[in-house]
Amino acid sequence: MNPRPLPRPVTETGVETNGVPVWPPVKVTANAQMDLLVQHHLTSPHEAAHSLGRMASLAMQIARIQNGKHGDLPVICFESPQLVVFAGDHGVADEGVSAFQQDATMQRVLTMLAGKSPVNALAEMNGFDLTLVDAGVASHIVPPPDTESVVPLLVRKIGYGTRNMVLAQAMSATQARSALQAGMDVVRHLPGNVVALSNIGVAGNACAAQLLSRLCGVPLADACGKDQAQDEVQSQRKLERLFAAASRHRKATAPLDVLAAMGGFEIGMLCGAMIQAASERRVVIVDGFVASTAALLARALVPAVADYLVFAHRSAEPGHRLLLIHLQAQPLLDMELRAGEGTGALLAWPLLLAAQRLLQL
Amino acid sequence: MNPRPLPRPVTETGVETNGVPVWPPVKVTANAQMDLLVQHHLTSPHEAAHSLGRMASLAMQIARIQNGKHGDLPVICFESPQLVVFAGDHGVADEGVSAFQQDATMQRVLTMLAGKSPVNALAEMNGFDLTLVDAGVASHIVPPPDTESVVPLLVRKIGYGTRNMVLAQAMSATQARSALQAGMDVVRHLPGNVVALSNIGVAGNACAAQLLSRLCGVPLADACGKDQAQDEVQSQRKLERLFAAASRHRKATAPLDVLAAMGGFEIGMLCGAMIQAASERRVVIVDGFVASTAALLARALVPAVADYLVFAHRSAEPGHRLLLIHLQAQPLLDMELRAGEGTGALLAWPLLLAAQRLLQL
Repeated sequence: MNPRPLPRPVTETGVETNGVPVWPPVKVTANAQMDLLVQHHLTSPHEAAHSLGRMASLAMQIARIQNGKHGDLPVICFESPQLVVFAGDHGVADEGVSAFQQDATMQRVLTMLAGKSPVNALAEMNGFDLTLVDAGVASHIVPPPDTESVVPLLVRKIGYGTRNMVLAQAMSATQARSALQAGMDVVRHLPGNVVALSNIGVAGNACAAQLLSRLCGVPLADACGKDQAQDEVQSQRKLERLFAAASRHRKATAPLDVLAAMGGFEIGMLCGAMIQAASERRVVIVDGFVASTAALLARALVPAVADYLVFAHRSAEPGHRLLLIHLQAQPLLDMELRAGEGTGALLAWPLLLAAQRLLQL
Repeated sequence: MNPRPLPRPVTETGVETNGVPVWPPVKVTANAQMDLLVQHHLTSPHEAAHSLGRMASLAMQIARIQNGKHGDLPVICFESPQLVVFAGDHGVADEGVSAFQQDATMQRVLTMLAGKSPVNALAEMNGFDLTLVDAGVASHIVPPPDTESVVPLLVRKIGYGTRNMVLAQAMSATQARSALQAGMDVVRHLPGNVVALSNIGVAGNACAAQLLSRLCGVPLADACGKDQAQDEVQSQRKLERLFAAASRHRKATAPLDVLAAMGGFEIGMLCGAMIQAASERRVVIVDGFVASTAALLARALVPAVADYLVFAHRSAEPGHRLLLIHLQAQPLLDMELRAGEGTGALLAWPLLLAAQRLLQL
């Protein structure tokens, strides 16, 4: 009989030396007393109960996360809100699963670094600090020198794009763990108590569809949207390639195995970022389909993370609707966005501010 | 054979002396060139087309209304946004069609005048001027003296509540016309180019359900929501009373006849306000079920008004969903609000600001 193994040394960053992750503790936020206080505060005797509808639920969720009070009144307080966009490329883009070539990722990254993306305007308008993380763009990002100050670039490259999942594992198990760790590190060094999380990357939606299909049992054809820019033949071909990948990785069913087999570096980082943010009791605003897939992973790994996630919007991707149903999440907006990059999170932000204001009445 | 009648003299206020209304001219806003400019401006070569989804449609609609340009670029410019809340009572409240007694209207009015309603907080937060119009509250409104300056009260009382539509016409044809006229007058004296329109009034939803049912052919049972605070017996009784009213007024089918038979003073004023605002090329933000019914009337009377209406939210009232489908309108938010008073309009307002900002990129 083997002796019981000794406890393994834990590194500073929260990953055991032999590679099995140890997550930071995340507390569930359930607080019935706080809910009652918020409900009481938002209900007038001359109005129907629940007259503020989902604004009340939003106020309750944030009040539970922050757990702050001013006398008997629950208060919400937002400090230096952050938007972090993780950029990564996907080898599966070689299979033509996106209407764009892989270099479109770089173009979008450079547009954002130059401050010319819609999300730059919205971040400025809403007082968000914007950080771009190179999780694994397929080439070296050279920011235009005169725009260094517009958006800080954090280089946490795990690789130059993932491998093509039709031919191999998208990434090694070590890379998957490194991505999770990098996401946690990024959030740990950010100020504030609100973090909005999003992504950039051609073919990210194809990976998200695979993860949704595998982790929730949704048929791949439903999980994977039809790109408006692709015709029937291209769509069919895309689905065939994704079926081939799903078949190759049919043995991957545990969350981290699925991430390594068919995920992306930015998805891993988003997942790590969510876990870390939840452990620090930050409000996490989840933007778009890819970030929601990361939320699915994060909830599978650390269930209590769910309490900290505010889903900003339902994107035009058909898979996103199904994923939100599986997460039992009601997003704040439904504006049929496809832009990613955090636009949805920033468009939803004023609703959080309104929830804060309503509690101050 | 009778001679052809001479043209009738038109009064200054836009109503012919014999009572047939003459509406101010409302121009359709269709402008394909403007749409192309906006679409081009909001589309990046590295993004999927329509990546901004309904934000682009919103920007287009407002750009068409304002029709402003800066060089070749369409611009949106908002000036002193106004929220006008019309308060009116409904005689049908005597039939127990609402969970509240009629005096709840007065309580809500006084709360708003005292600046203690959620909508006061949201108006302040969003820089809206708030005006409360007494369209026909059942008693005399005495604003608390120390709060006169918080919200201005315009007294345009058409009557002390409408009559009970189960027993009689809710109002006379003259009263209906006066309400429309008063709504037009209120908007004409407001500054700015954006006006959000809402209502307060117990049993307003019952009237809205009647108008929806009659003007769109929706079965009354579908149009009329089940009040959460009412049990099965009360709901059934409410529906019976509304059926009785619908039967009594079965001959009213023209929009103004329906308004007089089963409408409310505030619905008439909202309708007039929308027509006037559209004729002045203001952006009209429509809040809630009752205001949407007024939009239905306004569109029936002056079809071009449709171009100026931005529907802020889908309320928790089941009838509102059906009405929006009939109007082919996609509301900006779906937060299950029941509060009325303009909360939905103010919660949606940041999306209009975001549309403005996106065009400035």
